[in-house]
Amino acid sequence: MRGKILYLDYAASTPLRSRALEVLATSMKKDFANPASAHRLGKDLQRRIETCREKFLEFLGANEGDKLIFTGSATEANNTIIRGIGLRTGDAVAFSFADHPSITAPMEILGKRKIQVNELPLQKEGIPDEMALLKLLDKTVRLIIFTHVNNQSGAITDISRLSGQIKAISPDTHIHVDAAQGFGKIPISLKDGHIDSLCISAHKIGGPKGIAGLYLRNGVQLSPLLYGGGQEEGLRSSTLAAPLIFSFYEAVVEAVNSLGFSLDHVTAMNQLARDSLKEKISSVRFPFVKYSSPYILTFILPGIPSDIILRHLEQKGIIISSSSACSSKIKGAHPVFSALHIPLNEHKFVLRASFSHETAEKDIVRFCDTLAAIYNDLKIYIK
Amino acid sequence: MRGKILYLDYAASTPLRSRALEVLATSMKKDFANPASAHRLGKDLQRRIETCREKFLEFLGANEGDKLIFTGSATEANNTIIRGIGLRTGDAVAFSFADHPSITAPMEILGKRKIQVNELPLQKEGIPDEMALLKLLDKTVRLIIFTHVNNQSGAITDISRLSGQIKAISPDTHIHVDAAQGFGKIPISLKDGHIDSLCISAHKIGGPKGIAGLYLRNGVQLSPLLYGGGQEEGLRSSTLAAPLIFSFYEAVVEAVNSLGFSLDHVTAMNQLARDSLKEKISSVRFPFVKYSSPYILTFILPGIPSDIILRHLEQKGIIISSSSACSSKIKGAHPVFSALHIPLNEHKFVLRASFSHETAEKDIVRFCDTLAAIYNDLKIYIK
Repeated sequence: MRGKILYLDYAASTPLRSRALEVLATSMKKDFANPASAHRLGKDLQRRIETCREKFLEFLGANEGDKLIFTGSATEANNTIIRGIGLRTGDAVAFSFADHPSITAPMEILGKRKIQVNELPLQKEGIPDEMALLKLLDKTVRLIIFTHVNNQSGAITDISRLSGQIKAISPDTHIHVDAAQGFGKIPISLKDGHIDSLCISAHKIGGPKGIAGLYLRNGVQLSPLLYGGGQEEGLRSSTLAAPLIFSFYEAVVEAVNSLGFSLDHVTAMNQLARDSLKEKISSVRFPFVKYSSPYILTFILPGIPSDIILRHLEQKGIIISSSSACSSKIKGAHPVFSALHIPLNEHKFVLRASFSHETAEKDIVRFCDTLAAIYNDLKIYIK
Repeated sequence: MRGKILYLDYAASTPLRSRALEVLATSMKKDFANPASAHRLGKDLQRRIETCREKFLEFLGANEGDKLIFTGSATEANNTIIRGIGLRTGDAVAFSFADHPSITAPMEILGKRKIQVNELPLQKEGIPDEMALLKLLDKTVRLIIFTHVNNQSGAITDISRLSGQIKAISPDTHIHVDAAQGFGKIPISLKDGHIDSLCISAHKIGGPKGIAGLYLRNGVQLSPLLYGGGQEEGLRSSTLAAPLIFSFYEAVVEAVNSLGFSLDHVTAMNQLARDSLKEKISSVRFPFVKYSSPYILTFILPGIPSDIILRHLEQKGIIISSSSACSSKIKGAHPVFSALHIPLNEHKFVLRASFSHETAEKDIVRFCDTLAAIYNDLKIYIK
């Protein structure tokens, strides 16, 4: 690779924020006790974890009695809900095939156990098709999953409005939200009390890998995925990784405090990227702009397979992707792209750049100029 | 608390080794990509993780084709085996109630699902009762769990010999070993190929909390606990926490390289503690010495409840415990103590000190002197 690396794959994972790194290093050194221990070192740690937990709930706009449990990953949080809310043979569930694999994969397993698996269709712009959603409710669906911000389309689902609509018709339907991509970047409020559970992730917002959270509305009944020492009110046994929690907390504080400022900045960067790419590459298409988070920009460059573009960009030190890291090994038809209405013959041309609050104008310029040069060099090979 | 804190609760959790801390801090800053990403940053991380994985297998004396998957905790590793090997109604399992709650708790759930749960009785010194074990095999037990080093008694189970005996009689019985307390401290070799799975933990040997490992013998079939992006050959989906793995690796390298030296040192410290306590407190009892790891010293101080002793020690800056952190909330009869043949009327007098390679002679002297002073002050209250 030549030159300084320009990382534009923040939707896959993010660097640790400097304050989060500082806290992690200090805490890893200092906070070595087991938070479950009965002695003072343990109790002090547990107390500090409880303070973080309350703050997380505050940031989510949670209500009195709501809970947040810490998990090892957002995947674990999603699996915990899907497998823990007590679905039985004959029950119906609904989700989109554009959701993260940590939703679609356990749902596939449920399907084999004779749970009725329903697709929640999306509109062309990536948000749920409301007519189809309301129709589904006839079937007394037990569990509906929404992705707050889709990792591919960037589409922001209006989880407050939709969950309100669903609960008005079907108050017993459990509504779970995967907010791994959105928390700390796009505002969320759980004030209305319609959302039953929601997962958040540390490493998507400048926190460490290996820690995530699962919000549970007051009164939600859940069987744990991990049984053991009974940590997290028995809902997630395992020694609590206190230093990871404290570091996650610092990342969240920073992200939440600068959310509006960062959002404005990234919106401008996203606009700049689109304008610049449109100007330089006449055939570029942006299928998901209308409802999308500016942190994610998916585009289609017809004619040149994405893996070739990615390789050329990489040689110039620029890192983007085509789809989520967790589905990076899929070849041929991509279920996420299909669910997002990208025509099959264009699946191989899909690219995704994703930004952070630190992505600067000069980064966007470098990215667009380099990509345009690569594409315009290669397009003579398009048949 | 007065004076410098003397931490003697290393069986609950350990401070990060300095090299492991260094690597963690550097890697958390530098290795921010997602190891599942298709780009070079991701692939480089995945390659480095594979190098660590091979070394872990080497340290375990594993054979060609054996696997190690990384999990978020030893609890997760134990749960993965218990719930993943495909037990069916009517199958029999065997384990000890002195095992860690991450074994006994999921086993209790299995019992409710009509799996035959058998207790594997222990001898007085804490190791399995072999006659009882061989008798159990008549029932074609599908899963037997051994604890390599028990967190309370310290008893070292001869997993090589016992697993060989079992496989000779019942080759299809899955043998799982919980080696969270022993790995890196007491030698383990899986060369014989009789052990089917084994869990290891980072934070018990100077690695970070939030990462652990599950060894799987070549050919073992397992359904995952976490479904999603298909990481770890599909056996444990979740973004791999690369920095935690690299730090874990450093801790293991250091622990394994100095295993013999550390073991000799801790053996001497344990002996010193027992000699000194016996000399100063005539009524002290050490129920588990014969087969026990010197890293753990459980003792009984008749007459003064352990919580009172612990509080007084804490006031003098000395941290020990009575049982595992994961069962620190149990009041009254303690199932682990019962399984270890501690008479019910002595449960409230059980104390556990646990040591590390860094525990020095002066620490043992301070601990014994302080404890003896406290006990001898308080014993006038014994009725």
